[in-house]
Amino acid sequence: MLLLTGFEPFDGDTLNPSRDLAFALEGRRVGGWQVHALELPCRFDRAPAVLDAALARLAPSAVLAIGQAGGRAELSFERVAINLVDARIADNGGLRPAEAPVVAGAPAAYFARWPVKAMAAAARAAGVPAAVSYSAGTFVCNQVFFHLMHRLAGPAAALRGGFLHVPWLPAQAARVAGRPSLDQATMQRGLLAALGAAAGLKPEEDPGDGAGRLD
Amino acid sequence: MLLLTGFEPFDGDTLNPSRDLAFALEGRRVGGWQVHALELPCRFDRAPAVLDAALARLAPSAVLAIGQAGGRAELSFERVAINLVDARIADNGGLRPAEAPVVAGAPAAYFARWPVKAMAAAARAAGVPAAVSYSAGTFVCNQVFFHLMHRLAGPAAALRGGFLHVPWLPAQAARVAGRPSLDQATMQRGLLAALGAAAGLKPEEDPGDGAGRLD
Amino acid sequence: MLLLTGFEPFDGDTLNPSRDLAFALEGRRVGGWQVHALELPCRFDRAPAVLDAALARLAPSAVLAIGQAGGRAELSFERVAINLVDARIADNGGLRPAEAPVVAGAPAAYFARWPVKAMAAAARAAGVPAAVSYSAGTFVCNQVFFHLMHRLAGPAAALRGGFLHVPWLPAQAARVAGRPSLDQATMQRGLLAALGAAAGLKPEEDPGDGAGRLD
Amino acid sequence: MLLLTGFEPFDGDTLNPSRDLAFALEGRRVGGWQVHALELPCRFDRAPAVLDAALARLAPSAVLAIGQAGGRAELSFERVAINLVDARIADNGGLRPAEAPVVAGAPAAYFARWPVKAMAAAARAAGVPAAVSYSAGTFVCNQVFFHLMHRLAGPAAALRGGFLHVPWLPAQAARVAGRPSLDQATMQRGLLAALGAAAGLKPEEDPGDGAGRLD
Repeated sequence: MLLLTGFEPFDGDTLNPSRDLAFALEGRRVGGWQVHALELPCRFDRAPAVLDAALARLAPSAVLAIGQAGGRAELSFERVAINLVDARIADNGGLRPAEAPVVAGAPAAYFARWPVKAMAAAARAAGVPAAVSYSAGTFVCNQVFFHLMHRLAGPAAALRGGFLHVPWLPAQAARVAGRPSLDQATMQRGLLAALGAAAGLKPEEDPGDGAGRLD
Repeated sequence: MLLLTGFEPFDGDTLNPSRDLAFALEGRRVGGWQVHALELPCRFDRAPAVLDAALARLAPSAVLAIGQAGGRAELSFERVAINLVDARIADNGGLRPAEAPVVAGAPAAYFARWPVKAMAAAARAAGVPAAVSYSAGTFVCNQVFFHLMHRLAGPAAALRGGFLHVPWLPAQAARVAGRPSLDQATMQRGLLAALGAAAGLKPEEDPGDGAGRLD
Repeated sequence: MLLLTGFEPFDGDTLNPSRDLAFALEGRRVGGWQVHALELPCRFDRAPAVLDAALARLAPSAVLAIGQAGGRAELSFERVAINLVDARIADNGGLRPAEAPVVAGAPAAYFARWPVKAMAAAARAAGVPAAVSYSAGTFVCNQVFFHLMHRLAGPAAALRGGFLHVPWLPAQAARVAGRPSLDQATMQRGLLAALGAAAGLKPEEDPGDGAGRLD
Repeated sequence: MLLLTGFEPFDGDTLNPSRDLAFALEGRRVGGWQVHALELPCRFDRAPAVLDAALARLAPSAVLAIGQAGGRAELSFERVAINLVDARIADNGGLRPAEAPVVAGAPAAYFARWPVKAMAAAARAAGVPAAVSYSAGTFVCNQVFFHLMHRLAGPAAALRGGFLHVPWLPAQAARVAGRPSLDQATMQRGLLAALGAAAGLKPEEDPGDGAGRLD
């Protein structure tokens, strides 16, 4: 099973394409995985626990957390989760933590545990703007990404997964001047192509990193 | 009748959303107008004549010429056509004219002859990124725009019309890094909203300009 | 004599590099011209009259008006002044005119009356980021530019001149995130190179435009 | 002593502001540190060894490596060095390594070992565009940054330091269209302010991270 998480809207918005993307694939088979969709609260104090409960309950073999990155023009397959929380705006619970670790005592960073380059290339080959990104920021998105990678690095070491940042929807970009967006259908086409690329590689074919093999 | 023109692909591309947008509305009624779609060659030596022939044959009451502006993030309702051709790349006939007037002896510029601000606002209200633009460049798009405005300013003074620059499609933006795009369905939704706004105003309600009223 | 105008700071700022650039060259000989610097108020109701008074008093043979375009990365030699005022923010007198002509009954636009391409190329050859721009906006900068071109097109037809938009200074860009700037010394080096290029061409060598020769 | 390193020009260029910045401060006292400047080769196979030799020979108490990031608009105080090399272009020795660790078996990332936020704020307060960055890329810059942080984390744990990415000089940006730059004097003013801020804090006041205190 593939667990797909998306966030509730935040920062006063009523839209968040990450949640819509996850739930649009709920129950479908993608790349041999059965998809289970989950909404995460955009709250530093709750998101990790909600994710943990789902990991325990569902025992997925892969996890993709999705979040919104307003202002980006393309699907961004994140490669690096850092052990740092530093919020520029308040989350949905009114918290705005500064300069704190995601997990005290954990490593400075984890790499995504699947082939982000092949995934971005597959999305582009499907006609969808996509790239590998080396920073998922320091807000709830990066918190969830780091928390997930910390879990995958531990007892759940067989799992694969990572994080995807998606642009605004056109209706969100229409509120400001000159900002890029992608519609949901295009994002979904890119996501499906990327997941197909990930599923087509065995975990042992995933790229390694300086910390050694991924397993 | 509303004449909608779009360009053939150029600069080695096989796609051009401007043509697809025009032909997607062929035969439909939009804002009380019957739409007629026309493809223009991306050639300095032919585009004006093809447009002229259509104006003579069809006697439209409004004309919107559409062109592609790769790298822009939103629908750009052009306000100013300038009497200048200066090509950075060759057109589809291999021509690359430099520093020439579109129409020798004609004015330096014309303003679009319909309410571009209201049109952009209507597109945004429909959830589609859109803006007014004050430069249509100096390539075939501006040539056609200026040529059209020159025609509308003359014996065809009852006509309304202008020029719309549209972003790349996602499949075009996917070839380069970090560039914006809009899918065709979103562009069409914005175009329909904008044309509805233009049709909802009588020509005498269109904004004037420093050259006097539009008639 | 070359009249160099710059604007006073506006929009709550205490800096405006356009004024500093003009006055840094006050009294110097540049390209065979004696430079006279003038500050223009950033007010729709006063800037044209202040410029007119200087034109009458000084009878310059060339005029370059300079203005600030925050957010641009390079010297922008403007090519097109349009007969339109449409203010997004209030000027220094609290006025915010919308959709009005600069000069009622005047043409829709004028082209700059000197070789903007050669000027931008000379600045770049001197190591200064520079380009030709086809829109000077619709604020006081464009008002002054259009007003000046309208004057040059009339009885003062022997004059040459145009408009230069300059980026923020580093100290202005430092207030926001990720915005470009140029320091004053670099801007001045580019300006001197551009004025040298303009002075090196006789007026009859200046590029023409669709409205015919420049004189 | 503060060791300041800059890179030789690369990718066919003859300029690299990072080297000029380092050598402009050679021999000066900055924030109580005596500055020693060092040029690093832009070569994956040599840069770490040249840095190691200088660390051994000079025993600095702080190290700032500087590199060029063409296209950025501001001083970027890097916060995260990742254990990944993936070159998009060849280095000066013709090498273009892909998907390799900087140091096999080392952690996925290190945080900079000094107060990057305070440093960026000090530069901005001095009127210099500056920010904290969370990705130093995957080229020789990140290799040197990671290598340095790996050294500082080991037996040289008393050291402080990090990496600074600087924009192009104006003369470099002048070769392309619309790209930002900063002149050397402005960069130096920002660098001095930032180093003053770092020196003003004791190492134990430096921000920590998820991996625990910095010492």
